[in-house]
Amino acid sequence: MPGTTPEQAMRAALAASVAVHGTTSPNPPVGAVILDAAGEIVGTGATAPPGGPHAEVVALREAGERARGGTAVVTLEPCNHHGRTPPCSEALVAAGIARVHAGVADPNPKAAGGTERLRAAGVEVVLGTLGDEVATGPLRAWLHAVRTGRPHVTWKFAATLDGRSAAADGTSRWITGEAARAEVHEFRSHVDAVVAGTGTVIADDPALTARYPDGTDRERQPLRVVVGNRDVPAGARLDAPDVLHLRTHSPDDVLKELTDRGVVDVLLEGGPRLAGAFLGAQRVDRVLAYLAPALLGAGAAALADAGVGTISDLMRLKVDSVRVVGGDGGDVLVDGRP
Amino acid sequence: MPGTTPEQAMRAALAASVAVHGTTSPNPPVGAVILDAAGEIVGTGATAPPGGPHAEVVALREAGERARGGTAVVTLEPCNHHGRTPPCSEALVAAGIARVHAGVADPNPKAAGGTERLRAAGVEVVLGTLGDEVATGPLRAWLHAVRTGRPHVTWKFAATLDGRSAAADGTSRWITGEAARAEVHEFRSHVDAVVAGTGTVIADDPALTARYPDGTDRERQPLRVVVGNRDVPAGARLDAPDVLHLRTHSPDDVLKELTDRGVVDVLLEGGPRLAGAFLGAQRVDRVLAYLAPALLGAGAAALADAGVGTISDLMRLKVDSVRVVGGDGGDVLVDGRP
Ligand SMILES: NC(=O)c1ccc[n+]([C@@H]2O[C@H](COP(=O)([O-])OP(=O)(O)OC[C@H]3O[C@@H](n4cnc5c(N)ncnc54)[C@H](OP(=O)(O)O)[C@@H]3O)[C@@H](O)[C@H]2O)c1
Ligand SMILES: NC(=O)c1ccc[n+]([C@@H]2O[C@H](COP(=O)([O-])OP(=O)(O)OC[C@H]3O[C@@H](n4cnc5c(N)ncnc54)[C@H](OP(=O)(O)O)[C@@H]3O)[C@@H](O)[C@H]2O)c1
Repeated sequence: MPGTTPEQAMRAALAASVAVHGTTSPNPPVGAVILDAAGEIVGTGATAPPGGPHAEVVALREAGERARGGTAVVTLEPCNHHGRTPPCSEALVAAGIARVHAGVADPNPKAAGGTERLRAAGVEVVLGTLGDEVATGPLRAWLHAVRTGRPHVTWKFAATLDGRSAAADGTSRWITGEAARAEVHEFRSHVDAVVAGTGTVIADDPALTARYPDGTDRERQPLRVVVGNRDVPAGARLDAPDVLHLRTHSPDDVLKELTDRGVVDVLLEGGPRLAGAFLGAQRVDRVLAYLAPALLGAGAAALADAGVGTISDLMRLKVDSVRVVGGDGGDVLVDGRP
Repeated sequence: MPGTTPEQAMRAALAASVAVHGTTSPNPPVGAVILDAAGEIVGTGATAPPGGPHAEVVALREAGERARGGTAVVTLEPCNHHGRTPPCSEALVAAGIARVHAGVADPNPKAAGGTERLRAAGVEVVLGTLGDEVATGPLRAWLHAVRTGRPHVTWKFAATLDGRSAAADGTSRWITGEAARAEVHEFRSHVDAVVAGTGTVIADDPALTARYPDGTDRERQPLRVVVGNRDVPAGARLDAPDVLHLRTHSPDDVLKELTDRGVVDVLLEGGPRLAGAFLGAQRVDRVLAYLAPALLGAGAAALADAGVGTISDLMRLKVDSVRVVGGDGGDVLVDGRP
């Protein structure tokens, strides 16, 4: 389509990055689109797995000669860094790109400088196109990790409106509905690691795998991590070779171990005490609360011991969205940040 | 406006009934609009306080001779009952009304028969205009009370996303925001009674009055009801003559006492144990859950002892709406029925 706007192209670049979300760590999941001089999309690309080409290079290859005089629309500022691959800024200059739109600036000091390099070569550079959307998309965890030196932690929990995650007798199956469970499996498939405490492993015997609604495993599986001093019971579904068992109670120890393994995006699945420890240590960056429209009146609480003793220490969330999952009568998802 | 549709007129009738919601019990808060033969609104009315005229009569008086050959649009089927006032069906016939639209049929056997009486007099009657909207509007509690013989009970609670209604040290002020609190005071102003357990009265010393945001009392105040064997502490804000103290643990005893006093619409404000007793006895007809986007991890739960021991007995709600109260970052209101 000639006359594609930079915003439309950025949406296409974002969509390309969504498709590789979860396959690129420790590199960022970037999407790129090349428009020819008439504004027609002539190339689309996304970051390949580590060691493979960056998004811009993939898109430029598809565009070929039609990139000359055109525009590159990239979710992340093109890098200027001789890593495993040559700098994208140079590839864009070499291809004759006249203008670059980037969603967010690269906060990584090693890679930064792409904009200067491009401008020095006479390329016009616009930063911040659909910036908020891009920053909360697939790049979110990677941006956080570059800025803080720690992986991004999403705590997901499921509870009734009265905050119970199990009934009085400990039973807890299907508090939330099918659509919410499907979302969680989808989420698992694009994070680098899924973390649970020994309490949850012993009580619920979870597999912590990313599955399709029919129960079969997805292609991509996150690293599975168990935290706590107790052993994973013999014969547990997790009692398999690909589990990382960290015998610690320190959230920062956990995050350091994960960083050493290239983990950028973590899904903390609980339970209540491990989540309380992460929240209390200010190591939760996103909360996904799946609230079933149901009441129990007894049973384990979804969160324990987060270090709050009095109401003035209440942990308020900045709410990014509130949504009913799976249509009428579905669960309520509150997505926020502590 | 000539050519007003029955649906538009029903919306105007509903609005008229909203204005008197809370002032009519044990009579229903009805709204009525009269359209002249050309479809212009020539009269609007709503139920007067007990002993005063019904909505149709108020609207007919305003319309006068212009009602002849016109249409009456009424939220509730006109009554055929010689009570404190003559039957509305007769008033409509006498005024020369040619057609009647009613939102819902009158389930009250004493008052029913209005439709037959009107049709016998040659008046066309259409039942069910905007029926669902009308049935969930101001008439909701009264329709429930006529059908079941019990007042309609709305349980409202405020909690964090992890279901806490107070912090570990018992402090609980301002869990939810200003907009949610304003809604609750507005709600109190149009119910007949507000009910709380002695536990809440002793712990929180609530006034249970309907107030404006500046703290001044609204004109209409509900009956204030305390349930439980303990005394209201001397000097408590509720230690005033206009409180009904019911020394019982039986929800049905409470509802019977309230029915005897003409109460149709009850707001149960908790706390957790009294709410659990009402829910366990299936005496809650509506749940308003105000969930603050915040976490506590410790402190009293919003609901206790509702008689659910295992997950298969989970009390699911039929959700009528999910809404963020007071804009961005506001509380999440889940409005449902057990
Ligand atoms: N609603 C939900 O979404 C959800 C999700 C998961 C689980 N659950 C429920 O949660 C229940 C289990 O509760 P839980 O609290 O025992 O689960 P948990 O938080 O998964 O496990 C607690 C264990 O985590 C370890 N741990 C690591 N760091 C810790 C720290 N800083 N502080 C405290 N403990 C730390 C300890 O293990 P060691 O004692 O071995 O050292 C502790 O016993 C189950 O009934 C499960 O169904 C609910
Ligand atoms: N989140 C909210 O929206 C909300 C609302 C209100 C209160 N609260 C909190 O709730 C806490 C008080 O908890 P609570 O459970 O003591 O309050 P509660 O439910 O108001 O009061 C409990 C008392 O109610 C009486 N009662 C009447 N019928 C009962 C029955 N069938 N079963 C049990 N008790 C019955 C008993 O009084 P006797 O012992 O005198 O017979 C019992 O001790 C306070 O901290 C308050 O802040 C929260």
